[in-house]
Amino acid sequence: MSKFVARLAAVVLTVLLTPALRADEGMWLFTHPPQRLLRERYGFEPDAKWLERLQRASVRFNNGGSGSFVSPRGLVMTNHHVGLDCIQHLSTAEKDYVRDGFHARRLEEEKACPELELNVLISIEDVTARVQGAVKPEMGAEEAAKARRAAINEIEKESLEKTGLRSDVVTLYGGAWYHLYRSKRYTDVRLVFAPEKAIAFFGGDPDNFEYPRYNLDVTFFRVYENGRPVEPPAWLRLNPQGASEGELVFVSGHPGRTERLRTLEHLKFYRDFVYPALLDLLRRREVLLRTYSEKSAENARRALEELFGYQNSRKARLGILAGLQDPALMGRKAEREERLREAVRSKPELERNYGDAWRQVEASLEAHRKIYHEHFLLERGQAFNSRLFSIARHLVRLAEERRKPNAERLRDYGEAQLESLKQELFSEAPVYADLETVKLADSLSLLAERLGFDHEAVRLVLAGKSPAERAAELVGGTKLAEVGVRRALEAGGLEAIEASRDPMIELARAVDPLARRLRAAYERDVEEPQRQAYAKIAEVGFAAFGAHTYPDATFTLRLAFGVVKGYTEQGRPISWRTQIGGAFERAEAQGHREPFALPESWKKARQRLDLSVPFNFVSTPDIIGGNSGSPVVNRAGEVVGLIFDGNIHSLVLDLMYTDEQARAVSVHTAGILEALRKVYDAQGLVAELLGTKTR
Amino acid sequence: MSKFVARLAAVVLTVLLTPALRADEGMWLFTHPPQRLLRERYGFEPDAKWLERLQRASVRFNNGGSGSFVSPRGLVMTNHHVGLDCIQHLSTAEKDYVRDGFHARRLEEEKACPELELNVLISIEDVTARVQGAVKPEMGAEEAAKARRAAINEIEKESLEKTGLRSDVVTLYGGAWYHLYRSKRYTDVRLVFAPEKAIAFFGGDPDNFEYPRYNLDVTFFRVYENGRPVEPPAWLRLNPQGASEGELVFVSGHPGRTERLRTLEHLKFYRDFVYPALLDLLRRREVLLRTYSEKSAENARRALEELFGYQNSRKARLGILAGLQDPALMGRKAEREERLREAVRSKPELERNYGDAWRQVEASLEAHRKIYHEHFLLERGQAFNSRLFSIARHLVRLAEERRKPNAERLRDYGEAQLESLKQELFSEAPVYADLETVKLADSLSLLAERLGFDHEAVRLVLAGKSPAERAAELVGGTKLAEVGVRRALEAGGLEAIEASRDPMIELARAVDPLARRLRAAYERDVEEPQRQAYAKIAEVGFAAFGAHTYPDATFTLRLAFGVVKGYTEQGRPISWRTQIGGAFERAEAQGHREPFALPESWKKARQRLDLSVPFNFVSTPDIIGGNSGSPVVNRAGEVVGLIFDGNIHSLVLDLMYTDEQARAVSVHTAGILEALRKVYDAQGLVAELLGTKTR
Repeated sequence: MSKFVARLAAVVLTVLLTPALRADEGMWLFTHPPQRLLRERYGFEPDAKWLERLQRASVRFNNGGSGSFVSPRGLVMTNHHVGLDCIQHLSTAEKDYVRDGFHARRLEEEKACPELELNVLISIEDVTARVQGAVKPEMGAEEAAKARRAAINEIEKESLEKTGLRSDVVTLYGGAWYHLYRSKRYTDVRLVFAPEKAIAFFGGDPDNFEYPRYNLDVTFFRVYENGRPVEPPAWLRLNPQGASEGELVFVSGHPGRTERLRTLEHLKFYRDFVYPALLDLLRRREVLLRTYSEKSAENARRALEELFGYQNSRKARLGILAGLQDPALMGRKAEREERLREAVRSKPELERNYGDAWRQVEASLEAHRKIYHEHFLLERGQAFNSRLFSIARHLVRLAEERRKPNAERLRDYGEAQLESLKQELFSEAPVYADLETVKLADSLSLLAERLGFDHEAVRLVLAGKSPAERAAELVGGTKLAEVGVRRALEAGGLEAIEASRDPMIELARAVDPLARRLRAAYERDVEEPQRQAYAKIAEVGFAAFGAHTYPDATFTLRLAFGVVKGYTEQGRPISWRTQIGGAFERAEAQGHREPFALPESWKKARQRLDLSVPFNFVSTPDIIGGNSGSPVVNRAGEVVGLIFDGNIHSLVLDLMYTDEQARAVSVHTAGILEALRKVYDAQGLVAELLGTKTR
Repeated sequence: MSKFVARLAAVVLTVLLTPALRADEGMWLFTHPPQRLLRERYGFEPDAKWLERLQRASVRFNNGGSGSFVSPRGLVMTNHHVGLDCIQHLSTAEKDYVRDGFHARRLEEEKACPELELNVLISIEDVTARVQGAVKPEMGAEEAAKARRAAINEIEKESLEKTGLRSDVVTLYGGAWYHLYRSKRYTDVRLVFAPEKAIAFFGGDPDNFEYPRYNLDVTFFRVYENGRPVEPPAWLRLNPQGASEGELVFVSGHPGRTERLRTLEHLKFYRDFVYPALLDLLRRREVLLRTYSEKSAENARRALEELFGYQNSRKARLGILAGLQDPALMGRKAEREERLREAVRSKPELERNYGDAWRQVEASLEAHRKIYHEHFLLERGQAFNSRLFSIARHLVRLAEERRKPNAERLRDYGEAQLESLKQELFSEAPVYADLETVKLADSLSLLAERLGFDHEAVRLVLAGKSPAERAAELVGGTKLAEVGVRRALEAGGLEAIEASRDPMIELARAVDPLARRLRAAYERDVEEPQRQAYAKIAEVGFAAFGAHTYPDATFTLRLAFGVVKGYTEQGRPISWRTQIGGAFERAEAQGHREPFALPESWKKARQRLDLSVPFNFVSTPDIIGGNSGSPVVNRAGEVVGLIFDGNIHSLVLDLMYTDEQARAVSVHTAGILEALRKVYDAQGLVAELLGTKTR
């Protein structure tokens, strides 16, 4: 914990503020678990061993999901929609594992995923003092940001050199804490089992974020090292009975991002500016890919995973926006903020040191608004919605950054990040020229629409052509689809990049000075002031609300807890669990039309299946996007379920916890085992999961 | 022709400008047909009788399409997608004519369409002098607009009283000409035949605006008067051989709106501001209705026609935006405008009288930009995407406007407009509360997003609730779904409206003062200055480019001409026609998946059908949205095809004519007859169409 906090606590602890935590709230740090809460509410206190085992059995997927080791032979369980990326990359027009499912009955049949990297968190170190110490009071925002980045880059590099582990400095409480997370990296990850998408994502977009559900949203991978299944740092055993009603459960996973500590003005900025613009973009891309997909079955296959991503985000963001537009919810937020600000105002010393934090946030938002579109389009790359462009930019920047000392590099190109970057850069995952062209043309049009045809960047990028023409020329002309070409450019360094006549490299090069200027402006005028302001607000908050709290989610490992329990909707009770038979009933009620058509394998297995076995269930732990694939464990640390979604009421958890109706939605382990046994005849996999046999 | 033009012509006719018309360009007024062009290019000159017959056999649909009388017994042919509105209104969850098609084999089985009004243009009168004479040079914009509206309202009312015909004053050349169009109104329109949507719209959104096509996009209605089939003012006979390659053809229909006379700055305003915003809205509504539709088959049925409308507009607008973003196209436009402006600048007298027109347009655009969102949302009603709200607003405004003298009323509430308005208001077409709520919630959210929560209108409209909550309350509370309630409110006049506690009426009432202020601002600062400026530009244009031209489309009757002919795409020749067998081949190639699955009736008829019969064909006439359902006639005035689409290259016709690749797409009459005979066993209909029998 930072020294700052300790000092402050003495000053304001007398301020009486109601305890802030509601019911089963919290995405807790493994270093600061909610021991007292658990003891008082559930009479259960996990010990250090219990926590360490869960931590080390938990797996982070680099594409944004969670998972866990579930056997001593490196078997990893996650969601189908987390594995989808890889399943699609392994598929072709001839052999479509997304549609048909995949099952390797022997190790030799397991298929390596080209782009997947898994991380297991090994240790956590508080480096707040060193990071904050690098910033001197007299520094301006630009200098402060630079000094902090240098400190972080150095800490990460030192750690990597010392331990060989992936090392990431994580910003917590918006800048009040800095922790160094060391993770074991796994890059040889192979697909073991995936069901058909029709049952993994039964109900599709209409049922996404809804409940009751009937989804076998599960996929198994196996992690290898040196060509053999790895012995994981820890693993969790599947409990075949699975979750039962009223039971205390834990979720260990990587919630992506919450905004619970944001100020009211910051939320209004999201509500009135960021979210509407973002949703316009998500819908735009959804329609674009839908249109592309409808042209042929092969097009649909190519765009499937990306289209799902946009639909999923669209629905999630709409839910959050609905929360932001709800005066009741915003009122609660305002009230809480006002209490804190009142507490600050009431003490001159606090007012002097922390009183300007809210105004500082507002100023940063004004600055952000001014550069928002340019930054989003040119630096964040949304104007270039193309994998080939993203490769080109990485190559261009890597060549430049490498010539600098590590401490001065852009964060993504620090020594500690290079391995992961190269895995992405040299991935053999397929690139479809037609899809690239469609996407790039649309995003170049977006660039022109948002910035206007007279903007220097638009003129530079379009080079006198229409967006469609320019996109066709760029995708048609670049050779970056070939991994060999990328490797050669990477190996050739800055000279190779500067000499390259590849049109995509030329474009990335031409845009880079402007993009970097925008990045610098963003860091100086938005990120750094917010970091400083939120550090102050967090510190005041610690003192006011006590230390029994948790930071906003940052796609790092967290522990949530709660109970298995149904809820009430429009007066109707919603049961804690669905049963396998419900899938058949819903398919029937929907006339077996897409996306409610069950796969053949399920129709054939119907007679064999025990239709009363629990399929999906709901519970109250505080989870959010990024938790997909997280294990749900019981007091004994056994897996009783697999998180795959939250219901519609849970979408506001991004902003504020509630457990009246908000629920996490999981696949029940009994349902998983029943399906593996009777639909897929996967007896070997079942034996491995239950520990009755290892393959 | 206005006196202004004649005077001006003498001054600038000496300016040498190349003739402006390309190839088969032109959406010609029936009062000013392209006689010379036709004679010189095709050696054919339609006489007055030929033209009058075609004019009087042409039908305008009030929902935005075209059609023609094709039998002496009031039979009207149009597109399925023009009739879709009615076909859907007649359908229920139990009997779905959209999915299954409809065929009345006897007059008694023909079903009346609740909302349809057809108009046949009977006469045209030039009223330019009277309308322009009402505006005095000393009048400000507001006064000028008022005076002009008063003159128009009076002309329409006088004409209605004198002739009993629907009377509309049409603005041509952006305000240089005013013509009084008198039309016969038909409101008893009954559905006779519609094929299944699967073949009418075979290929769906992916094939929309594409070619080759295989669509039976045809529907037949019958017009009644006094309970009996009407004898139409004129009718066209179907030619069973249909169009042949290279043939000269004519299209008589109602192109909706072109922007060919707009200034370059005006087009840039569309490109950079209007179109991006409009497309965001179209995609938003598309995704909204798609999401709603996917929840159940019944939802899909309810939203089908509206969803199709958004998809169709989205694709069309994207095509136009692509044109606006094409430097080559905009360059041509700029060049042409520059030539005209140079001509003006070269003569001091012209410069004095007309030189400021372009600047005036720019000023109007600036004014429009400032009120754009407010006007669009509050006055154009896009914040209230709900049929119930639109009814409420009509009731509120009708009650107020009726108390004013006719000359002072808002245009839509003039005496001449009331009959049509009441038909819409008292329609028995079903209203679905769930769909209304979804749509209204989304548009209220849009209102808050665009104007901000602190805007007075947003506060007024949301009344302290979230958009979703407020929409549920409004739709749940209003009684306007009952036609009886609407009738009572209409009959009760302003007192009934002011006493009403119906929440939708209350909302419409509350918003109206602000909406009217926005309307006044729009008329004063945008519409009127543009009208004056474009009148000037048109007049200079007449003089410079000669009088052999045509005004921008205004959803009034026009004549286009061209030839039946294929084109070349990416080096491949595209045939002038497809054949019936092609539909089966395409369904097969697409794996019979939606929207490429043929209906059962077609699969069954396959053996009987002559697969070589022409199905769809392309030709060069200058058409655009609104021409849907237009007859394609030969020199003999016989119907040889039925317009239903334009190809993707034709979308830029909104801005500029081109016939390199742009083509109108039609159903071939031979294909229509083959399908009617062999798929639908519609021998009676065929006999009526060929004049071999009347029913």
